[in-house]
Amino acid sequence: MIKKANLILTKNIRVQDSFWNKYRRLVKEEILPYQWEALNDRVEGAAKSHCIENFRIAAGEKEGEFYGAVFQDSDLAKWLEAVAYTLTDDSPSAPEGACITGCSKEYTLTDDSPSAPEGACITGCSKEYTLTDDSPSVPEGRLRKLADEMIDLIGRAQQEDGYFNTYFILKEPERRFRNLREGHELYTLGHMIEAAAAYYQTTGEIKFIEIVRKMADLAVQTFGPEPEKLHGMPGHQEIELALVKLYEITRESSYLELAKYFIDVRGQGERNYFLEEMKQAGGENIFPELADYRPEYSQSHLPVRSQKTAEGHAVRAVYMYSAMADLAAAYQDEELLKACEVLWDNITQKRMYITGGIGSSGILERFTTDYDLPNDYNYSESCASIGLALFARRMMLITRQAKYVDIMERALYNTVLAGIAMNGKSFFYVNPLEVWPDSCMERTSKEHVKSSRQKWFGVACCPANIARTLASFGEYIYAWEDNRLYVNLFVGNKAAVPLSSGETEVEMETRFPWENKIKLSLRNKSKEKETILAVRIPEYAEDYRIYRIKGQKKNTLEFEEKDGYAYIVCEEGAEEYEITFDSKPRFVRANPKVRADAGKVCMMYGPLVYALEEADNGANLAEIYLDTSQEPEAEWKEEIFQGAIVLKAAGKRIASGGWSDSELYGEHHIRLEDARLTAVPYAYWNNRGAGEMAVWVKELLVLS
Amino acid sequence: MIKKANLILTKNIRVQDSFWNKYRRLVKEEILPYQWEALNDRVEGAAKSHCIENFRIAAGEKEGEFYGAVFQDSDLAKWLEAVAYTLTDDSPSAPEGACITGCSKEYTLTDDSPSAPEGACITGCSKEYTLTDDSPSVPEGRLRKLADEMIDLIGRAQQEDGYFNTYFILKEPERRFRNLREGHELYTLGHMIEAAAAYYQTTGEIKFIEIVRKMADLAVQTFGPEPEKLHGMPGHQEIELALVKLYEITRESSYLELAKYFIDVRGQGERNYFLEEMKQAGGENIFPELADYRPEYSQSHLPVRSQKTAEGHAVRAVYMYSAMADLAAAYQDEELLKACEVLWDNITQKRMYITGGIGSSGILERFTTDYDLPNDYNYSESCASIGLALFARRMMLITRQAKYVDIMERALYNTVLAGIAMNGKSFFYVNPLEVWPDSCMERTSKEHVKSSRQKWFGVACCPANIARTLASFGEYIYAWEDNRLYVNLFVGNKAAVPLSSGETEVEMETRFPWENKIKLSLRNKSKEKETILAVRIPEYAEDYRIYRIKGQKKNTLEFEEKDGYAYIVCEEGAEEYEITFDSKPRFVRANPKVRADAGKVCMMYGPLVYALEEADNGANLAEIYLDTSQEPEAEWKEEIFQGAIVLKAAGKRIASGGWSDSELYGEHHIRLEDARLTAVPYAYWNNRGAGEMAVWVKELLVLS
Repeated sequence: MIKKANLILTKNIRVQDSFWNKYRRLVKEEILPYQWEALNDRVEGAAKSHCIENFRIAAGEKEGEFYGAVFQDSDLAKWLEAVAYTLTDDSPSAPEGACITGCSKEYTLTDDSPSAPEGACITGCSKEYTLTDDSPSVPEGRLRKLADEMIDLIGRAQQEDGYFNTYFILKEPERRFRNLREGHELYTLGHMIEAAAAYYQTTGEIKFIEIVRKMADLAVQTFGPEPEKLHGMPGHQEIELALVKLYEITRESSYLELAKYFIDVRGQGERNYFLEEMKQAGGENIFPELADYRPEYSQSHLPVRSQKTAEGHAVRAVYMYSAMADLAAAYQDEELLKACEVLWDNITQKRMYITGGIGSSGILERFTTDYDLPNDYNYSESCASIGLALFARRMMLITRQAKYVDIMERALYNTVLAGIAMNGKSFFYVNPLEVWPDSCMERTSKEHVKSSRQKWFGVACCPANIARTLASFGEYIYAWEDNRLYVNLFVGNKAAVPLSSGETEVEMETRFPWENKIKLSLRNKSKEKETILAVRIPEYAEDYRIYRIKGQKKNTLEFEEKDGYAYIVCEEGAEEYEITFDSKPRFVRANPKVRADAGKVCMMYGPLVYALEEADNGANLAEIYLDTSQEPEAEWKEEIFQGAIVLKAAGKRIASGGWSDSELYGEHHIRLEDARLTAVPYAYWNNRGAGEMAVWVKELLVLS
Repeated sequence: MIKKANLILTKNIRVQDSFWNKYRRLVKEEILPYQWEALNDRVEGAAKSHCIENFRIAAGEKEGEFYGAVFQDSDLAKWLEAVAYTLTDDSPSAPEGACITGCSKEYTLTDDSPSAPEGACITGCSKEYTLTDDSPSVPEGRLRKLADEMIDLIGRAQQEDGYFNTYFILKEPERRFRNLREGHELYTLGHMIEAAAAYYQTTGEIKFIEIVRKMADLAVQTFGPEPEKLHGMPGHQEIELALVKLYEITRESSYLELAKYFIDVRGQGERNYFLEEMKQAGGENIFPELADYRPEYSQSHLPVRSQKTAEGHAVRAVYMYSAMADLAAAYQDEELLKACEVLWDNITQKRMYITGGIGSSGILERFTTDYDLPNDYNYSESCASIGLALFARRMMLITRQAKYVDIMERALYNTVLAGIAMNGKSFFYVNPLEVWPDSCMERTSKEHVKSSRQKWFGVACCPANIARTLASFGEYIYAWEDNRLYVNLFVGNKAAVPLSSGETEVEMETRFPWENKIKLSLRNKSKEKETILAVRIPEYAEDYRIYRIKGQKKNTLEFEEKDGYAYIVCEEGAEEYEITFDSKPRFVRANPKVRADAGKVCMMYGPLVYALEEADNGANLAEIYLDTSQEPEAEWKEEIFQGAIVLKAAGKRIASGGWSDSELYGEHHIRLEDARLTAVPYAYWNNRGAGEMAVWVKELLVLS
């Protein structure tokens, strides 16, 4: 019996966490307004989007031609999805110049704006601030109004039969659904469905769902096993998981069946669908680099149940695996679940960076081969790690195993977070683990590697994907089913959960990852039966304890441990718990088969991967050796990154004094000098100007 | 006063050297016949060439269309140049099944043919063999006949005004000299001139020179400073150095002037010629990847005298620098010579691999930035190292400084030689210093890296370039001027030199690089004045000695050392010398600014760079540490590589026993176990099947 546990939806959870909210408030204050301007081509120096304009033209309200990528519409979809999640997000925020303390100073955030420790007023006013239930929340008006306008515009651009996609409407109407390999219309519809689902869930409004349903119905009429239908599937997976969401809202089974069809038909038959399509298609390639198409690229090289290794474009892969997990549960499909587990193992045991980055090739953003994890010219797209987190979340919901959350947490706290600057104004698509800025040059194998975050991109997937992930971050924290509440992430929040043991209010308070102490309060409104609390025991936790708190009394609880969770039975309606564990800074090594990391070591603290930066350690990090015979020390630094723990470690550095500038090779003996090293969270790198960075550092050997 | 010393031309030198001839005989036995088949599209599975066919069509003798790259003609030019050099090459060889001992067994060389120590009969007959003046030489007939036919064909394809280039004649006649950026017609003419010069020098026949002169004259009429002429220059440099050769044969100064013009006009003016040409041209790009053209690519970003760093496409660069050196001497241009020296220093002190490889980027085959020398995804094209040797040779001729020969020798003995398999049947274009075959995959940043030599290429520059280099190898050995003979390389040979002190016969016998003992005999036919011998003291030589041998007596000679040469005055007409030096196997390190090599060490022996191969050391070379506290040992191995010295060294290996296959990251401590390591000459790697290879190895650093 495969059964998926439930999430707590965004509308029912309020994140109030000092670690995450400093990023989350950027979504409303910086990213979504900025992206709105970008979608409307009002950002000077940024790549032209034309996205909204395309819809106006498709709706017949403007003259003009389509401009942009074939998947340009999806930028609006992702923007709408992120906006939708923020509509119930009342975490403290300072939009439009307002101070979060409610002070009245005017304020425009610039690159030079002082960074503010959580809670302090960013305008520099001196009011103290503590997060309360009554903290001023964002006036929702503006974003909601824009979203409504955009949904209506999409409706007006929709054709009689339900179809909407501005590229095909305006540019190649005769190739609708005839260039699935490159067309991205099902991918784009998938993102529209996800946006509509988010909008429905947070506002209760059905109008966007009604729009996307019409095109989903058209897809149902167009694709399927029946002889008269197209036996194709999307060139970029995404709609599969979206159709499951649409089914969950509408309970219309044809959507679920179509999702299953898309998964089942993939890689079936003697001839690859996309290759056949290319032969028949005629017409120009949209993507010249795909002229010599390889089915692996879109995971269509084998039936999905026969795929044993993660291949091809990483985002396509993990979006597909997410849908496979959904469908395994929906259809009680053990074989499909097994395929998910095999692919999961291949990724996480052979093809994943320690940061949760996946897709190690900069060309075609793809998986390569087992243990091939170069640090300085990899891709590890931010979106791929988001997809990995989505896959992980589903696998946890199905299996109730914490190992999936360990990876989810790793991806979110490292690669996903690294994707965004602390001022919310620039983004990484590519997430190398080692950067020497001088060598990140155009027209080289490192052309894709940027040594600093970029303002905006022609293909704007990552910023928008990070925005929707942060905006819906609450959904990653818990899972629940029946009378059981799973605590997956340690993030301050308040939530409401309709457990079978009674409608429950839950509140978490913590300074995790800086402090491994979590206060958890539960209040059952009606105590019908006992509530089970399953709190994750992270892989890195030591001396893990749970206390029950009653007034001034604090009693250690015995717990049953299963699959990485501590299970406890709650005694009564209102309870308080404290969870504590140790997580000392630790040295981590890679399996020596990872050639790039053999002989190297990295530092972690809790879920955070640490990196050396030039700002703390000087230039040429390749000269540095870490002395792992001495324990690293964790040190709270108030003054950087709005407060963070840095790690101090002992090490050595190659003394380069013997070398003259005119000497490239020589017989000088290597000489080491002492070095005191400082590592910062990988997610925070490149927030203090350009410079070298390295996660993996040479290890000083001690011969026994 | 800048004056170039002279080379000994191929026709006047006969290489008889066990190290080089095992490769040199492949030129006639394998490479040129194979390439001839390829040029005629008779090699199954190889990329179609159509090269000869294009000429037949252009000559009006066949119907059809042009096929191939815009520079397809240059394949024939390079083939002709290499053939021309072999026409006087009477080194022992076994073409067409004949045994070099003159035995009569029939013989066809196959992959499984037994390798034969120099001198032994490769057919397995048991005759002993010693190289003598009367050793049977190759019947020249076949190659000479083919060459003559091809030269005549080129003549018939030539147009009324002297123009010949099958691409432009057949495909874009209206763009003759109007797409210099991509057109390669001047590049191709350059190679044709070099072929004609070689053919003239070895055969004394002028017919090919007459053909190329007509097009050179057309170029003289077309390009130049006069207002009515085109103020352009070649998009791929090559013709400049060829025009100097043509001038040296014909003494027609307009060729020298045109070479100078091409060099002088490069990078001049406010607008880049190639960018302007693109604007005016219309027409399609021949190379889509150059649509966004950067003048650095063709070293046209600055006037050549202002260029301080080696930029752009590496082959273009070193061919140009070679011509600059020629012209600095021809025109007494101190500023140009200074530019050569600055560029030389930048390459050899900041941008060159220890193997003499240059051009570290796999994309656009280009230089990147100082100290950016990645080992596993670099390019280091074989042709670029040939160009570096050509540049070095010219700089030595001008400056009489041995430091240029040190680099020339490094390039020839390592990267150039690595380009060809020991059976002459496959080739490397790309010369990485570290290879893990599993990770050399298509559609990744390592797409260009091949873990095994390839049979033939669509762009067949490297095999042909290696062939002409081996065929003319004698020209690298000596330099001379007036009464002075410079000995640059230690290679067995007999040569005739017209010194001012009298026509001199010189003979070198040596087993270098396996043995550092060189026997040198000089015989002056007429002793008019004293002869000066300048023997190079290699940078790696220790305890360098020169002896004069008279009968049974061997006297140590004092010598004057200047710029890396030992100068001695020969006493009489016929003399014998012995030069000896020590060159123990040595550990070499890179300037720590080379991030890729920091903390690593490599082994060298004389000019040879050594590499670890999987065949000797097992898989995963990244696990290995070299123990530099123990001297490596040189060991002669008769049974591999037709006899070679391998280096044995002590080391350690990461014991990977603690890791399970399902574990990608963990906290296992690193544990080392003893390892006995074997390194082989880099040039010989990948001659025993596919496997890992590494030049730079982690150095075992023990805390003191």
